[in-house]
Amino acid sequence: MAKIILTGDRPTGRLHIGHYVGSLRERVQLQNSGVYDKVFIMIADAQALTDNADNPEKIRQNIIEVALDYLACGLDPKKSVIFIQSQIPQLCELSFYYMNLVTVSRLQRNPTVKAEIQARNFETSIPVGFFTYPISQAADITAFQATTVPVGEDQMPMLEQTREIVRKFNTTYGETLTEPEILLSGNETCQRLPGTDGKAKMSKSIGNCIYLSETADEIKKKVMNMYTDPDHIRVADPGKIEGNTVFTYLDAFCTDDHFKRYLPDYNNLDELKAHYQRGGLGDVKVKKFLYAILMEYLEPIKKRRTEFEKDIPAVYKMLQEGSVKAEAVAAETLAAVKKAMRINYFDDTELIKGQIKRFQKK
Amino acid sequence: MAKIILTGDRPTGRLHIGHYVGSLRERVQLQNSGVYDKVFIMIADAQALTDNADNPEKIRQNIIEVALDYLACGLDPKKSVIFIQSQIPQLCELSFYYMNLVTVSRLQRNPTVKAEIQARNFETSIPVGFFTYPISQAADITAFQATTVPVGEDQMPMLEQTREIVRKFNTTYGETLTEPEILLSGNETCQRLPGTDGKAKMSKSIGNCIYLSETADEIKKKVMNMYTDPDHIRVADPGKIEGNTVFTYLDAFCTDDHFKRYLPDYNNLDELKAHYQRGGLGDVKVKKFLYAILMEYLEPIKKRRTEFEKDIPAVYKMLQEGSVKAEAVAAETLAAVKKAMRINYFDDTELIKGQIKRFQKK
Repeated sequence: MAKIILTGDRPTGRLHIGHYVGSLRERVQLQNSGVYDKVFIMIADAQALTDNADNPEKIRQNIIEVALDYLACGLDPKKSVIFIQSQIPQLCELSFYYMNLVTVSRLQRNPTVKAEIQARNFETSIPVGFFTYPISQAADITAFQATTVPVGEDQMPMLEQTREIVRKFNTTYGETLTEPEILLSGNETCQRLPGTDGKAKMSKSIGNCIYLSETADEIKKKVMNMYTDPDHIRVADPGKIEGNTVFTYLDAFCTDDHFKRYLPDYNNLDELKAHYQRGGLGDVKVKKFLYAILMEYLEPIKKRRTEFEKDIPAVYKMLQEGSVKAEAVAAETLAAVKKAMRINYFDDTELIKGQIKRFQKK
Repeated sequence: MAKIILTGDRPTGRLHIGHYVGSLRERVQLQNSGVYDKVFIMIADAQALTDNADNPEKIRQNIIEVALDYLACGLDPKKSVIFIQSQIPQLCELSFYYMNLVTVSRLQRNPTVKAEIQARNFETSIPVGFFTYPISQAADITAFQATTVPVGEDQMPMLEQTREIVRKFNTTYGETLTEPEILLSGNETCQRLPGTDGKAKMSKSIGNCIYLSETADEIKKKVMNMYTDPDHIRVADPGKIEGNTVFTYLDAFCTDDHFKRYLPDYNNLDELKAHYQRGGLGDVKVKKFLYAILMEYLEPIKKRRTEFEKDIPAVYKMLQEGSVKAEAVAAETLAAVKKAMRINYFDDTELIKGQIKRFQKK
């Protein structure tokens, strides 16, 4: 069986280094690994609209940002199909039919939906589109017969919903859809990188994210202002590592090689942490180290992004071509789905023959 | 503004005289009235699947029955576009986007949905597709920019939901959709014709309906076995009219002219009822009268149906042509919807121009 990946992002803003360590870096590796026959990367504008229905302009403006971030990170339209969700009408049709296979109470029990409803303060006024998006996600995944969905642990219940729909569909209508496997990222720190202010969630409005598209100056400023240990006042004081954002970021980004290049007095992160904890190591030194490491990652990304920004129409063309390719695959799946459900009446010569016979007998 | 009708039926079985007096008869009159610019008649297979997901074969087999009943009653593909819902993919896309404009609690308050959930014993396990079908109906109605939806009084909350979605959409994205008006049938008896056994609902499994496609013998048998007044034992006994199915059917079908032709001893139904109530009028006589009247309506329908049954492929061809026509209209509406929501990115030259400028400034 072909190994197929489906993954993507909601285009609600530029991507930041949380996205980078949490998924993008690994996604590029998967793309280049040679293990997967096809990689589909979806810019999930339709999903973003489920809780931004009154602000489509935000989604519309951010599609190009996400596409530029993708290209800058090394996602390659020659190797991956990068496409826009709303341009694949088959996804809506698949959703529509899958909705008959899931009960309302099953959706209500979905912990991811529960958590996100709470996070968004929806409570009594959840839009139906938001409530039903686990079903829409099942359509996204199965449309491409994805075998592998790389996501964070918090998304596991979503994928379980897809797997249930696949099993229910195949049992009811015959083997048609592929049951996807989850591909969990190995590094837990990378899945939950906090904001530069130490807050659990990066948020555009708070301004606590480092974007992939930021200038060196902006990044330096954000790193130097990063939240550390508020009780670590003098260099000589012992410092805390837990909840110290600079060290959390180092956990996510730093390798032993970085010490050779920028801090040869230490062999590895453990030694640096130990020094910080016993006192005598200042925040500024650690922050400068983190900045140097981040720039190793971000400078080439920024450089490639600037190149791609010079030809915006080419990026839209890439998205359009990707969407055309994705639609062709989704159309094949939808045709198989309709055939399995036997609602492809006009292509169904057996149906018409059978009916002719039936009415001749009467 | 063009006057446009959208109406239709779920293909879960052959149509019966309840459908005929409740909607079909009036629908043919509307079609032929010259008042409407376009009439769209939808065979709602996708909606029928929302609570028949495990039995698509039932839906599949009954599409041709409904189409034959339509043609037999005088719906004319030259005047009306007769089409199959599942063949219009745009309806799913419209539903998908409308779902963002309705809250879960709003759907839960819909009295029609509540009543139907109860009638179907769904309670805790409503399929999501069934729960959300007021939204899907809004898609059906608005896709054709229908101005007029002829339905029974029980469907008023459904239409109100559509009207709300239209107003919400137009307010959020700009004037795009047409707010439909309900066209209530004048005759209440016709809206609620009971089964031949006096039960409130006609049901295929109980066998208490008279189908449009039945033979004269079958119809006679059903009329002669019809529920009347169980206390009206001897001809001389006084009889009750209330709850007496034969008289309910006469209320729906009988005109003064019928008396001239079949029962010239009476001038009208009031005189017949009065005689029955005071005693001296036997059930058999009234039933024979009803049978004669029903046959006036049903015989020509049956005859036309038999003609259409001789060329089943032509009926499928008619449905396919209707579906192609309907899809073209729905595609126009969907394009307008996507344009209003500004998610028609690749056709949106302003978007690309704006983005080029934005990145040049940086």
